[in-house]
Amino acid sequence: MSKSFAIAVVGATGTVGETLVQLLEEREFPVSSLHLLAGNDSVGQSTAFRGKNLRVREVADFDFAQVQLAFFAAGEDVSRQYGAKAHAAGCSVIDLSGGLAQALPVVPEANAVALAGASAPYLLASPAPVATALAAVLAPLRAQLGLRKIVLTAALAVSNLGRAGISELARQTTELLNMRPLEPQLFGRQVAFNLLAQIGEVEEGGHARLERRVAEELKQVLAVDGLKVAVSCAVAPVFFGDSLAVCLETREPVDVAAIAALLEQQAGIELVESGDYPTVVGDAVGQDELYVGRLRAGLDDPTELNLWIASDNVRKGSALNAVQIGELLIKHYL
Amino acid sequence: MSKSFAIAVVGATGTVGETLVQLLEEREFPVSSLHLLAGNDSVGQSTAFRGKNLRVREVADFDFAQVQLAFFAAGEDVSRQYGAKAHAAGCSVIDLSGGLAQALPVVPEANAVALAGASAPYLLASPAPVATALAAVLAPLRAQLGLRKIVLTAALAVSNLGRAGISELARQTTELLNMRPLEPQLFGRQVAFNLLAQIGEVEEGGHARLERRVAEELKQVLAVDGLKVAVSCAVAPVFFGDSLAVCLETREPVDVAAIAALLEQQAGIELVESGDYPTVVGDAVGQDELYVGRLRAGLDDPTELNLWIASDNVRKGSALNAVQIGELLIKHYL
Repeated sequence: MSKSFAIAVVGATGTVGETLVQLLEEREFPVSSLHLLAGNDSVGQSTAFRGKNLRVREVADFDFAQVQLAFFAAGEDVSRQYGAKAHAAGCSVIDLSGGLAQALPVVPEANAVALAGASAPYLLASPAPVATALAAVLAPLRAQLGLRKIVLTAALAVSNLGRAGISELARQTTELLNMRPLEPQLFGRQVAFNLLAQIGEVEEGGHARLERRVAEELKQVLAVDGLKVAVSCAVAPVFFGDSLAVCLETREPVDVAAIAALLEQQAGIELVESGDYPTVVGDAVGQDELYVGRLRAGLDDPTELNLWIASDNVRKGSALNAVQIGELLIKHYL
Repeated sequence: MSKSFAIAVVGATGTVGETLVQLLEEREFPVSSLHLLAGNDSVGQSTAFRGKNLRVREVADFDFAQVQLAFFAAGEDVSRQYGAKAHAAGCSVIDLSGGLAQALPVVPEANAVALAGASAPYLLASPAPVATALAAVLAPLRAQLGLRKIVLTAALAVSNLGRAGISELARQTTELLNMRPLEPQLFGRQVAFNLLAQIGEVEEGGHARLERRVAEELKQVLAVDGLKVAVSCAVAPVFFGDSLAVCLETREPVDVAAIAALLEQQAGIELVESGDYPTVVGDAVGQDELYVGRLRAGLDDPTELNLWIASDNVRKGSALNAVQIGELLIKHYL
């Protein structure tokens, strides 16, 4: 296939956007021209792509009719403001922010088939990083498991809040180790050596908006009839990598060995052997693979399966999944 | 009541033992004589009690017939080696280590009544810190909730591994911030800025011994017919305080307001208001109270209740619960 595409990356200077640009290069995405865009703050910065420094331009001034595909890796507000505009200009959009409610969430391992029901220009979303990670792990197990309910407890890295999250954890840790008084800024709390039970905006009923997003995306992407989802997201003093403790309720008693065999043959998944366990630092971070381990049936309930997933939230959870959606699009649809 | 008691504390120099001795003083436990005991390493150290420095003596040489009550706050091995001996000498034992399988687990808020079925000398256990915290929170809700299943995901502080855990996290964090190469010692992994999915010894089937202990203790202490428990314990880069994400399955739709009202009137529980959330650092650590928040019904399931608990693992999770068992014993039974 020699076709190539004009591509825009909005939010090109953020942690996710930067990784996305790297992945387009690494994976030899057929790019004819690459337009790096951002809000005011980052305009004029430059990012390397195929040995050249590309300048970042103002998203507000960009004519999306110039490109066939745009990745939105800035905040929700930017996606809301420019995503529909890009789409109306005939450009297919892959949103990573969660800001476009009407976009179809896609995790290629789980619901590539959903694209067949959509039409060009495409309006797609890469789900929240923990939803992406969990959907990719559960997708190959759906038929075997007969999933009834997912209880997900996720410990999120501060990089889920971008560079500001990373520098806040570094700053707080340094202050504390130097016995200086701590003045929490970004989180309004001490995040260093602590766990924050809640992230971002909270809705009526007490669920964080992110938790509801994760639950909805999991149900849409996995498309299992009657699936129930419970989600708790906390922020951990971890720079990169989301840790997911997952307890599944299934229709039939779980055959752990069969599940392990299914996961072992799955591309993109590294199953850590029993007795050992996966972690974000040392295993998942910097990798394309999801690290899965601690597979075990329930202590009291044979229709329960527990597992642990370590995922690079920036790479596999966000940028890589978005690029994989792009690859799927250009292979079959654009 | 003017009766007073000869007491032994085994493991008096550990994080839990030291706190236990402080609590005996703070709470004016009626102590006639206090015997501080430990293994070889700590013998000769001293600990303050009521303005005096008491020397720590060798547990192997101690005659437990001298005391009416002994707290075992050293490791499982020490409890196994000397707990039965103390009990055989006519001394009531409160074990904090999990080493005495035959000991009756007690959380006074939940199963004080179980003592009535036991006989002197008593052989009791303070459950694992997360089991203690969760049992104390769920006990007053049992009747209202109609509990069917508990799914507990716990992020444990490194102080669950005693002083060695604390110094390993401090050392690793300092090394990393100073860009020095990290050589993990205690955990065999980087625990700083990471999450360790598994703690301690693992059994056939993949559950950690601690996870099975927590599940068994919760069932024994809560004594709810047919209750199922799922437990995942990870180690977080947190010095003090366990964080518990809890998802409960109940028989009837959950009335969150009624549950909140029950918790609010409960001594020993601080219910954090909706929208806010409890944390270990800043809320629970150093306090006798358990901090509870993020009460919410399921997104997809009205018979689901989610909540978050922040607990001082050393104090409320261990030392304070043990002292409260002691208070119960001397009030009614000794």
